[in-house]
Amino acid sequence: MKTDGVELGTGKSYAPVDGVNRGVSILDFILRIVAVLGTLGSAIAMGTTNETLPFVTQFIRFRAEYKDLPMFTFFVIANSIVCAYLVLSLPLSIFHILRSSAQRSRILLIFLDTAMLALLTAGASAAASIVYLAHKGNAKANWFAICQQFNSFCERASGSLIGSFGGVIMFILIILLSAVALSRR
Amino acid sequence: MKTDGVELGTGKSYAPVDGVNRGVSILDFILRIVAVLGTLGSAIAMGTTNETLPFVTQFIRFRAEYKDLPMFTFFVIANSIVCAYLVLSLPLSIFHILRSSAQRSRILLIFLDTAMLALLTAGASAAASIVYLAHKGNAKANWFAICQQFNSFCERASGSLIGSFGGVIMFILIILLSAVALSRR
Repeated sequence: MKTDGVELGTGKSYAPVDGVNRGVSILDFILRIVAVLGTLGSAIAMGTTNETLPFVTQFIRFRAEYKDLPMFTFFVIANSIVCAYLVLSLPLSIFHILRSSAQRSRILLIFLDTAMLALLTAGASAAASIVYLAHKGNAKANWFAICQQFNSFCERASGSLIGSFGGVIMFILIILLSAVALSRR
Repeated sequence: MKTDGVELGTGKSYAPVDGVNRGVSILDFILRIVAVLGTLGSAIAMGTTNETLPFVTQFIRFRAEYKDLPMFTFFVIANSIVCAYLVLSLPLSIFHILRSSAQRSRILLIFLDTAMLALLTAGASAAASIVYLAHKGNAKANWFAICQQFNSFCERASGSLIGSFGGVIMFILIILLSAVALSRR
């Protein structure tokens, strides 16, 4: 597994560069880019969707956008934060490709990745529960489905969840890869 | 940091037992027990709450329980699964206290912990968004707050979120500890 024995290690033990570790770091980099695209797409899709119905009454403007529902706002914010974090983490990911045996920066990344995973999951799940309510409503609580009226708004909001949940899966894989990279040095 | 040099390591490298690693594993065990209590408490608190209002009409039974809202059902199921997983992971955690240099089982645990973190966060967040709606309602979607009527149900549901979010924080710390333990062997 050892490539050429060049000592590039940081930290206490100057272990040789590990080819498998470099492959893991490259995969980590690719997964991060996929997650960037997923979360960015989700944030934009949810953030730009709005629908105005073609009729108006005296009291109600029939217009729906993401700001009407706090959970959708949270979804957009969570996805934006996670997307920005992922972009900022890319240089560190490149650093890991170059220096496969770096340890402390990997631990830092695992910790931040885990926190961001929790944030992204919370945003995606909160939005998903509202999307579910919007589609199905809830008879017991007297909450009616609003998707009959705001059909395209609902479809767009539902679709924007995909990128976010894809990002969650990417994060789980990224954390797994980091753990594998940490275990071999 | 090395205690007495007794070789108890599993896997490829038979490294000496690491005192810090043992401490990390003990802390991991304690955090898991705290998370078990948190998720168990949340599942029971949400699962047993119900409120019947002291009046009835011909058409509506004014009774609220967690099964009325799919997100609360998901919350109970997610907390139960995570709690069961945590109990099952305790023997492995004890194994890590005894054999501080185990690697593969730690990677397996990090992966499963991360997946369970995502499940628990999703459940907690979905329930939290419904609790928010129940408290505040949403004027734009014509969803009315139901907490004026079902006051004790709402309070209990809100309170049951605490254990779940506490469990999320425990999981983040557990994953961080596992990463630290993986990096030193």
